[in-house]
Amino acid sequence: MVGPLDSCKATPCVDASTQFIWIVGDPITQVKAPQVMNPRYALAGDRLCVLPASVHSDDLRRVFDAARRIGNLRGWIVTVPHKPTIAAWLDELSPAARLAGVVNAVRFRDGKAFGDLFDGVGFTAGLAARGFGIDGCAVLLLGAGGVGSAMALALAQAGASRVAIHDIDMARARSLVERLSGLSGTGTRFEASDASMTRGFDLIANASPVGMAGDPRTPIDTTLLEPSHTVAEVVMSPEWTPLLRAAQQKGCAIHPGSQVLAGQLDRLLDFFR
Amino acid sequence: MVGPLDSCKATPCVDASTQFIWIVGDPITQVKAPQVMNPRYALAGDRLCVLPASVHSDDLRRVFDAARRIGNLRGWIVTVPHKPTIAAWLDELSPAARLAGVVNAVRFRDGKAFGDLFDGVGFTAGLAARGFGIDGCAVLLLGAGGVGSAMALALAQAGASRVAIHDIDMARARSLVERLSGLSGTGTRFEASDASMTRGFDLIANASPVGMAGDPRTPIDTTLLEPSHTVAEVVMSPEWTPLLRAAQQKGCAIHPGSQVLAGQLDRLLDFFR
Repeated sequence: MVGPLDSCKATPCVDASTQFIWIVGDPITQVKAPQVMNPRYALAGDRLCVLPASVHSDDLRRVFDAARRIGNLRGWIVTVPHKPTIAAWLDELSPAARLAGVVNAVRFRDGKAFGDLFDGVGFTAGLAARGFGIDGCAVLLLGAGGVGSAMALALAQAGASRVAIHDIDMARARSLVERLSGLSGTGTRFEASDASMTRGFDLIANASPVGMAGDPRTPIDTTLLEPSHTVAEVVMSPEWTPLLRAAQQKGCAIHPGSQVLAGQLDRLLDFFR
Repeated sequence: MVGPLDSCKATPCVDASTQFIWIVGDPITQVKAPQVMNPRYALAGDRLCVLPASVHSDDLRRVFDAARRIGNLRGWIVTVPHKPTIAAWLDELSPAARLAGVVNAVRFRDGKAFGDLFDGVGFTAGLAARGFGIDGCAVLLLGAGGVGSAMALALAQAGASRVAIHDIDMARARSLVERLSGLSGTGTRFEASDASMTRGFDLIANASPVGMAGDPRTPIDTTLLEPSHTVAEVVMSPEWTPLLRAAQQKGCAIHPGSQVLAGQLDRLLDFFR
């Protein structure tokens, strides 16, 4: 057990010049952002401090409208269950946040609130940091929700040649493909896909909640996995999802969900600087 | 200059279990509460952290109503210019806060907001810590505003035999005397007083802003001071007010305003525990 003074190494000095970032959720007992981000800010000499704020869904709008008026509050990191709620209240959204309709970070500046979503770039940066190059890859993406939307965009921006999107709600997959195809500036081919068509893909990425927290299911039929597939996961808890276990048994290269958190850390730190 | 990691010794570790106290004012650049209180909480093993929140008067009600809904926010320390504003919004007030119509600390608990005012007990505890006994004293109190009201009550509770109250608005002084005389449980005699009647008092205490921040005035005619008078000040900036300088020249024992801050610290720490 770390004593109070030892663990203070993880926290920038709080004084009248400190600016704050709240991580807002309900509950907030699981959040790690303060311990992960504060030592980085302290080491870099930034007078910034991340702290948890426990806010019930019923109170979220009221707290949000008040929070943006607090002069030394830089912004919010948004966590469950508030991520989809807040996007509609913001003055500006990044392309990823607009496509997904979801934010995980809000910056207050000059009376305006700007939202971004780092799940997608976190995913691709995390894979890149682990030596997996996305440029030219064919990717089968499982899940067309907020996280999947952000990942599809980030995969295209990282140079994927083809992104095939599956969702249990195929209309949602097709709608995402349509919105992605309207974006210019990438040479990526997007398509809605049946999850049974795994042949020819380099990377199979789970962007759905399937396999989370004791869910025994996998987002695809794992008998279709081949050693040539690289399998990546966004589910963080458990680290070893049923999909990752099956993929490892099949001899696939695997990347756990924790790499997404690592991949988005630098972007999140910079967003509030 | 203290580096970011060294100065972290002044801050309790911030993680998901930390509870927060905001010091709310406008501006907040002058506040010392985080640096003064956080090391005490850290050393005592309390998972509490004081941080500044800069809130404009126009936004105060909105921010207050939202703040009391944040689950891990213990309460507020209230500083200029918000101290008189907030008392009216609270569910319960301590006797000192009710008498003064002013709070400097608010505790959120079980959906209610409870306000207290520590300026008075801070003053008497500060004098006691410096070896000045109030029991049996005759006190001339200069100023019948919020701070003066709290001081009059605390002086009575500490056993003053007589508290004579002067204010440039004598109606205000008489109103305070009337409210104080209605309180039971002390043997103190309260009276409204002309500031020229200094004879027979043991303690002359300034509870007015006269002498603050370059104001060259003194709250009484200093030619009336005698060596038998002890003179105490609540003005903290400058430490050497014109009243204290004159009192020292006259050979009086003196107590600067900083002793009030020291005197209320333990009470403020406990209020949020």
